[in-house]
Parts: sequence; structure tokens; C-alpha cells
Amino acid sequence: MKMMLFTIAVLVLASGAGVFASHARAAENGTPKQTITRYGTLPAYKGPSRFFTGVAWVQPLFEPKGDICPVAGAYVTFEPGARSHWHDHPAGQHLVVTEGIGRTGTEDGKVHEVRAGDVLWCPPGVRHWHGAAPNTSMTHFSFAGTLPDGKNTNWMEPVTDTQYNGGE
Amino acid sequence: MKMMLFTIAVLVLASGAGVFASHARAAENGTPKQTITRYGTLPAYKGPSRFFTGVAWVQPLFEPKGDICPVAGAYVTFEPGARSHWHDHPAGQHLVVTEGIGRTGTEDGKVHEVRAGDVLWCPPGVRHWHGAAPNTSMTHFSFAGTLPDGKNTNWMEPVTDTQYNGGE
Repeated sequence: MKMMLFTIAVLVLASGAGVFASHARAAENGTPKQTITRYGTLPAYKGPSRFFTGVAWVQPLFEPKGDICPVAGAYVTFEPGARSHWHDHPAGQHLVVTEGIGRTGTEDGKVHEVRAGDVLWCPPGVRHWHGAAPNTSMTHFSFAGTLPDGKNTNWMEPVTDTQYNGGE
Repeated sequence: MKMMLFTIAVLVLASGAGVFASHARAAENGTPKQTITRYGTLPAYKGPSRFFTGVAWVQPLFEPKGDICPVAGAYVTFEPGARSHWHDHPAGQHLVVTEGIGRTGTEDGKVHEVRAGDVLWCPPGVRHWHGAAPNTSMTHFSFAGTLPDGKNTNWMEPVTDTQYNGGE
């Protein structure tokens, strides 16, 4: 829990991948070795307003490892009422809720509540959004499959209040 | 924290992948849809003694999604002093410590302490082990790259007490 109080956030943004680059190169030069990235080493950043409504903090965890293990990992913490814009993932995304209560919606207009321990799988090309409940923050791990060009998210329009509340 | 009290464990064992099969098929038939797997739906299991010293509980989270997103996810919780046997991962493994204090070791004999928030990357083919500290349990997420045949771990011999304690 203490960790979560500090652990602010992640959605996997292709634009965030750069922060890992030097770390990855260090690991991949010469004989491969196990690497440990200490908590607090990778800077968290606020999810940009062109991708999020409200405040969401992204805490990068690891970058995709080429075609060996092409998945980017991060925490994302959404303040109450905050949510992503509509988007899809060209290589899919797993979410694991670690704290709080959230909401997620898809093209059918249905909105589902999610709680700590729930796991979501969004297949490639499926439009969705995810965020916190109106009065409760939510943190999830995000694991996004990543294409060879580094792309893992196609961002779209904001989620309206009506959509967030499950209305037509 | 409450979640973690219940959240017992994961290492990604190829042998554990079967429990996901029906879930995955449901998601992949017809139009792709986002799926939600509620906490408590997938059974946790005790890590078998041929792979672990002491008690480790594995809580599966998600299976590899073919070549789209070929990574298996799980929690693993190790009781104090418990650890995996030596092993490697043919497609690498990310670990994210979520709770407690742990240890990890590699072929050079060095043993490192890891704490909540620390992130490990073990490249393909690098022998390692991981587990709890002697007097403290440890939980980590495990994300293991998975080969097309479903293989993601090569299990080897137990970690001796001397190795666990960083001795020669």
C-alpha cells in the first residue's frame, strides 16, 4: 500500500519508450546479464492532456525487448474521474488493476467497473478507454504488445462525460 | 495491501498455461472483444517442489496471446526463505516486485536484495533464481516471453543454502 501511495501511474505510450534506451543498451552490450532497475530510477510523468481527461500519472517499468519480448510495461494511476481518451492497441494490451476502483468502456457503450485484482485483455484493434471511478482513484499495470516500429497505441478522441457514465 | 494478503503468487510455468485456454478461446472466437477476468476466477496453485524450495504460490494473470503479445503474466508469492530453483527463460523475463523483500542470484554468485518497486530484466538464456528474503515474504509480478511452442522456462537444479546466502 505504501508503495502504491508513491506509485503513480502508467499507460504505455510509445513516446515514453525513450527513457529506457540507455538502460536497455547497457544490458544488451556484451554478455547478457540480469539487470535491476531500482524503484525511483525511472521518472514518472503526467499523461499528456491530448491523451487523457483529468490527471493520470505514468510510471514506466520496462521497455519492449525487440522481438524477444515485445511488450512495454508501466503503472498508470488515475485520479478520481480521470480517464484515457479512446484508443486502441495494434498488438493488444493486458491491464491488471492493482489499487482502487476504475471504469472501462468499449464501442458497445457498456461501461464496466473494475477493482484490484481484475485483469483485462484488449485484443488488437479494439477501441476502448479506461480510468478511475468518479470518486476513487485507480492504479493498473499496463502491458502493451508493441510493433517492431515501437508503436503500441493509436490515440483518438476524448471520452465524453455521457460515455464515461454509460449513457447513449 | 489487502489485495496482496490474498494475492498469493506467480511464476510463469508453461505447465500453468492450460488454465487459461477456455478463457482465451472465448475471447478469440468471433468479433474480438475486451475481456475482464475477475479477481479470484483463475485458481492459484502451489509451485511444485521440483521447481521451488519452500512454499511459493502462483496466481496466474494472463496467458501469452500467440505472436501478437507472446508474454505470460502471473503473481508469485514466496514465503520467507523460499526461492525458485535455478532456471532460465528462452525469451526473457521481467519481474516487478510488488511486496516485501526478496533475493535474486545469477551465475556470478552475487546475490542482490530486491524490494517493492524494483524491476528485473533477465535476458534470454541467462541462468538465475529469485525468491524471498530469509525472514520476509516477497511477491512479484512475472512477465515471461513465451516461444511459439509455449515454452518460457527451462528448470534446473535447486539453489543451495550457500548459494542463497551468497557464499562460494
